[in-house]
Amino acid sequence: MALLTERTLLGPGPSNPYPEATAALAAPLLGHLDPEFIRILDRTCERLRTVWGTENPLTMPLSGTGSIGMEAAFANTVRPGDVVVVAVNGLFGTRMCEVASRYGAEVVRVDHEWGTPVDVELVLAAHPSPAIVAAVHAETSTGVRSDIGALGAALRSRSPETLLLADCVTSIAGDTLEVDDWGVDIGYAGTQKCLGVAPGLAPFTFSERAWQRRVENPPVWYLDLGLLGAYVRGGPGGRAYHHTAPVAMIASLDAGLGRILDEGLPEVAARHRAAGQMLQDGLIDMGLELFAAPGHRLSQLTTVRVPDGVDSAKVRAQLLSEYDLEIGAGVGEFAAGVWRIGLMGRNAAPERVELVLGALRRVLKQHGAL
Amino acid sequence: MALLTERTLLGPGPSNPYPEATAALAAPLLGHLDPEFIRILDRTCERLRTVWGTENPLTMPLSGTGSIGMEAAFANTVRPGDVVVVAVNGLFGTRMCEVASRYGAEVVRVDHEWGTPVDVELVLAAHPSPAIVAAVHAETSTGVRSDIGALGAALRSRSPETLLLADCVTSIAGDTLEVDDWGVDIGYAGTQKCLGVAPGLAPFTFSERAWQRRVENPPVWYLDLGLLGAYVRGGPGGRAYHHTAPVAMIASLDAGLGRILDEGLPEVAARHRAAGQMLQDGLIDMGLELFAAPGHRLSQLTTVRVPDGVDSAKVRAQLLSEYDLEIGAGVGEFAAGVWRIGLMGRNAAPERVELVLGALRRVLKQHGAL
Repeated sequence: MALLTERTLLGPGPSNPYPEATAALAAPLLGHLDPEFIRILDRTCERLRTVWGTENPLTMPLSGTGSIGMEAAFANTVRPGDVVVVAVNGLFGTRMCEVASRYGAEVVRVDHEWGTPVDVELVLAAHPSPAIVAAVHAETSTGVRSDIGALGAALRSRSPETLLLADCVTSIAGDTLEVDDWGVDIGYAGTQKCLGVAPGLAPFTFSERAWQRRVENPPVWYLDLGLLGAYVRGGPGGRAYHHTAPVAMIASLDAGLGRILDEGLPEVAARHRAAGQMLQDGLIDMGLELFAAPGHRLSQLTTVRVPDGVDSAKVRAQLLSEYDLEIGAGVGEFAAGVWRIGLMGRNAAPERVELVLGALRRVLKQHGAL
Repeated sequence: MALLTERTLLGPGPSNPYPEATAALAAPLLGHLDPEFIRILDRTCERLRTVWGTENPLTMPLSGTGSIGMEAAFANTVRPGDVVVVAVNGLFGTRMCEVASRYGAEVVRVDHEWGTPVDVELVLAAHPSPAIVAAVHAETSTGVRSDIGALGAALRSRSPETLLLADCVTSIAGDTLEVDDWGVDIGYAGTQKCLGVAPGLAPFTFSERAWQRRVENPPVWYLDLGLLGAYVRGGPGGRAYHHTAPVAMIASLDAGLGRILDEGLPEVAARHRAAGQMLQDGLIDMGLELFAAPGHRLSQLTTVRVPDGVDSAKVRAQLLSEYDLEIGAGVGEFAAGVWRIGLMGRNAAPERVELVLGALRRVLKQHGAL
């Protein structure tokens, strides 16, 4: 057998999984209808409710990577001609516009400068009564946190008819998340960031309000929440088979969630905050410039400008080959001008911060940039 | 930590994974853009081509369970109003009708008695020039193999315009599969059956002929083959990020495929045939009656009638609790009247046959049925 490559994954995700999550992946496999597995699935959904901050009965992991959560969100809520206001302050807002329009939405795009948070007033002004307002809580492309609670409060005080959809891929389990308090109707996430589990599932939550107004028989059979709900929640006739659940991934998510809840959600969020602060202080001390607007910077994902004259790709390749350390490039027009450094899940720890600061300092010196 | 439940999974899937596949699941995680991972992904696609029996460049694992393969097949090929002939001889044919119609197909359903194979003449007679003909190679619900090669030859000699779509979820790596020779244009499968990998990916293959006639910008962004192809195959500008690949699952599939190809595809198919024959002989010796039509029985999945007066669910529950042994119930009107016994992947082995025959004999005697 070839030697295994062992990386420290400090890019925008995947992160290194919690060891409990890895062990569960390799545990003896259960059948997807086995009572033991159903017990794990139910517990996973219950743990997800806790992490989301919701009592939504329809809360579960979807069988695909984070992007399938975005697809399910729009597939089950958009009717052709519906007005969907999308706050765009990075790549994932842009993608929401694309996905929503495939389901026939009349998309009203509210553009923001990349690196800045969503402006609630601007979003409200975009349309008086949209069917859906969609925004990204933690923009993975720019490292910016937006105030979803403020957006939800403003929307609710204006119109009970508008559903609020939030992308929480990079925020879940790395930051405070209060779906019910914030008035979020539809939320989706990924496992491979702060949840500290391999990529492959999309935690998803759907409010009763959204359920009442869902699209029946949506175009995508695989993501039809009516059918998925009958399997996950069961019904009078028991659980209706829909598709074979990815049992190993769900067992892994259950274990990762168990680790997180054992530590405590406030403690996990505080650990992410402390690690992010330590990294950002260190980068500034090094003379580097952070990208995201002050006051709105994510702890779990830091964006930093590549110094003038430095070849971003070369530095990343060197970190990978010499330190087995992955950090991320930027996105879009910032692809070569920004690095993205994630401290997610188990990687939200001072030893990871020391590693990346030390390695980056040494490499940048070699490139004559410090 | 609680004791782990260790099952022998002889239902219709998942099967117990090959040990190499399990080890790879728990190997150190790689980033989805890491050159090491890209190497694994490329090798996985190449190995899949070998197992499918195809040279289709667009051959890859989709990021979802087997059912997402069916979804991608129709999402990328059906335009509203297209005539799609579906051969229905079990649950998965029925599901194809449902999925195709969600994309606006005019579905022509060709019903067969459950337990019998697809009748090529009947399918041809259903419509003179359909856009697509769809059939299931190995019907998981009934344990029946259909002759996809004969169907492909007949279709090609009649009209070059019709695409042939084959569900190979239960046949891949457990039976002979010759996508190119048989004239299959679109094939999808699952990892959790004869490939001996946990559920979570859908191996997929798409011919150049299908590519030329694909739907651009299909409703489902997540399954848009134009976008997926740009990531999996790359292009002039390199690989375009689409979604975070489920890296652990893909590494596991790569390892499972490596094990299968090391043994040799003909040898693996022969092993499945031998195990299936041994099981079916043993069941008949026990006085039980097989469900699938003689001459068309799958080796990897045997259907057997529950003896009169025996409570199917009680027997299955007893096998599970006393022997940690899972076998499957039937489907639809045969839910309580048929058992499904899978010998897939590493479970296609004489020790598994002895276990299930011995346990079933003992339990049926206790129920007074032998």
